[in-house]
Amino acid sequence: MGDRIARLQASMRAAGFDAAIIMQPRDLFYYAGTAQPCNLLVFDRGEPYLWVRRAGEFVRRESGLRNILEDGGFAGIKRRMAEAGLTRGRLGVTEDAVPAALYKKMTGLFGGFELGNISPLVLEQRMIKDEGEIGALREAARLSLVTHRVILDNLRPGVTEIELSGRILGALRAAGAESIIRNRRWDASLAADGAMASGYNTWEISGHAMTVTGVGLGGWQAHGASRKTINEGDLLVVDLPYNRAGYHGDITRTYVAGRATGKQKEAFRKVRQIHERVLEAVSPGRACAELYRTARAAAVELGCEAWFQGYGSMQGQYIGHGLGLECDEPPTLEPGSRFVLRENMVLAIEPKLIIPGWGAVALEDDVLVTGDGYELLPAPERRLFEVN
Amino acid sequence: MGDRIARLQASMRAAGFDAAIIMQPRDLFYYAGTAQPCNLLVFDRGEPYLWVRRAGEFVRRESGLRNILEDGGFAGIKRRMAEAGLTRGRLGVTEDAVPAALYKKMTGLFGGFELGNISPLVLEQRMIKDEGEIGALREAARLSLVTHRVILDNLRPGVTEIELSGRILGALRAAGAESIIRNRRWDASLAADGAMASGYNTWEISGHAMTVTGVGLGGWQAHGASRKTINEGDLLVVDLPYNRAGYHGDITRTYVAGRATGKQKEAFRKVRQIHERVLEAVSPGRACAELYRTARAAAVELGCEAWFQGYGSMQGQYIGHGLGLECDEPPTLEPGSRFVLRENMVLAIEPKLIIPGWGAVALEDDVLVTGDGYELLPAPERRLFEVN
Repeated sequence: MGDRIARLQASMRAAGFDAAIIMQPRDLFYYAGTAQPCNLLVFDRGEPYLWVRRAGEFVRRESGLRNILEDGGFAGIKRRMAEAGLTRGRLGVTEDAVPAALYKKMTGLFGGFELGNISPLVLEQRMIKDEGEIGALREAARLSLVTHRVILDNLRPGVTEIELSGRILGALRAAGAESIIRNRRWDASLAADGAMASGYNTWEISGHAMTVTGVGLGGWQAHGASRKTINEGDLLVVDLPYNRAGYHGDITRTYVAGRATGKQKEAFRKVRQIHERVLEAVSPGRACAELYRTARAAAVELGCEAWFQGYGSMQGQYIGHGLGLECDEPPTLEPGSRFVLRENMVLAIEPKLIIPGWGAVALEDDVLVTGDGYELLPAPERRLFEVN
Repeated sequence: MGDRIARLQASMRAAGFDAAIIMQPRDLFYYAGTAQPCNLLVFDRGEPYLWVRRAGEFVRRESGLRNILEDGGFAGIKRRMAEAGLTRGRLGVTEDAVPAALYKKMTGLFGGFELGNISPLVLEQRMIKDEGEIGALREAARLSLVTHRVILDNLRPGVTEIELSGRILGALRAAGAESIIRNRRWDASLAADGAMASGYNTWEISGHAMTVTGVGLGGWQAHGASRKTINEGDLLVVDLPYNRAGYHGDITRTYVAGRATGKQKEAFRKVRQIHERVLEAVSPGRACAELYRTARAAAVELGCEAWFQGYGSMQGQYIGHGLGLECDEPPTLEPGSRFVLRENMVLAIEPKLIIPGWGAVALEDDVLVTGDGYELLPAPERRLFEVN
């Protein structure tokens, strides 16, 4: 934790922040080792202070930080800052996470300070994983093998999407998966049983992600498994997030209920070729935007660009994203990305072809950027599975 | 939907709002019938306008609103407001939900306007449920029978909390439960398998709620089921939220793995008496604060106030909360509540005794406030279950 705080402080000094208050549970877990309700005060140098909002006993057990305080809330923070000679300056807040009401309260309380958004610094730091995090991400990805086993054992014509979904959830939880998936975006949400879509549901693209979303059970949450029966010959796309020990995997495999047709095999071959092409391009120093361009160029070459990452107005311009304490972390592998790949980033790479009126094929793996290339994290074989 | 918009407009006029922009998915579902990424513009009278951010096809299918627009974002909203003659005034935003970054962007874009918090109006309206909502809440509560069946079938000495949890999750999903629980608070989160705690875990109170939380699998999410084995004679508290069709149930039952001791039975009798006393007090016109006082008075009378709703610094001052599209809706039944019970509120009423070093007993039911009293929503019997 000390190292992480020191690195944040270095980037705070470079960006001109005098102090920061960290309150979002994943950010707290990253810097303080606890996700309990706390406020973490980080000066631009020196020791951090952690104010407990609730459950001090858990906080003291979980956090390795030395200065754990139990009273005073924001007033206590302000007092501590004044004691350190800080009564004005630039105060960092994670403005993408903290709601407006709380921010306005802080603006009033910290009157002498200019509040600024510290999230870009936090998220940029979190892009590069340490050894422990890589281990956790590997174990999260490995949960995809549990899902795969459930599908091989249970997929047959007549089963419904939601029946499969229930079995997957149960098996994952028993295998130690958390049943909440964490998102950074305030209005995004992914269920622990992710997106599952078969047959005609594979080309319905709901608004919460530009991908094979499934249609869910209704308008209150129009993605994920539905009550649709899976029929003989249906394509089934299973795109699941995995939260294990707070870190996320994100793996997609495509199945056929029965024997695959030539056209299904051909579509999958193309998506696999795009995937391969992107993987070959993964190495430190490569621009994230270039990974997207590589994928798109492959799709054009294979004559499937009209269905690449969706179709029409629902075509997404991305080929993947970072993974960590949140399932939608930077960097996003998109044309506008300013980021360059670095060693120890962990990325989900997810090409898909979504053909309206026909079906979808998708392939997603989690990838560690190594010193000279990449390593695939554990996952089922990268092929189209025919389940009889 | 039209009715709901009209009622919001009436309260907007009373509170001096000229217009409001609704963006939070549950609020959108309530007023526009869709939870897709949209911005809903509501003037203080007249027709609302819904701007699609993504997935227009889903929005048009789901929403009953007439004016669905696909372009322009905030600029489009501003233009529409100007066309309606509104270039200054008071603009409502849900400031408890919208993050600071988005709020700051809106402050810039809507320069002529004073932004104000419209959440209290929205949430106060949402407290009173209509017939369809009450039906949905009833079906959500009914899912507690699925959980109860799983526990009766699987609880035995030697099983772990997380094994039980996995079976519950799988059964609930197959029965049509959503696997995401919705909270209003930005930093709150409840798993779809809720809080489960046995034996010595029952008196560990994690910071995310002042209740029997369980300890979870680690500091990244220190509540819910753990890997602890349930032993002969252990108390097991199972407090689950249920999301069905977007509406939430919240039901707790207490079990014993084997035969209950006299002391376990006695503790449960007390919690049941407190529950009974609160239920008797439920009727329109009663102050929410009074329900808390009634519960606390019963605990004092029964000589268990030291363990009522927790103990020491982890003693919560509440006896329940509203239920709806979010699991932590107003009104909260707490001493400081300014609300009075009204017909068609749906409340979770949840007394518990948490005795450090010994165990916990809890009982929670969902209750519809009727014209002259209350109706319990479907749930298992209100007793201590001995499972052999």
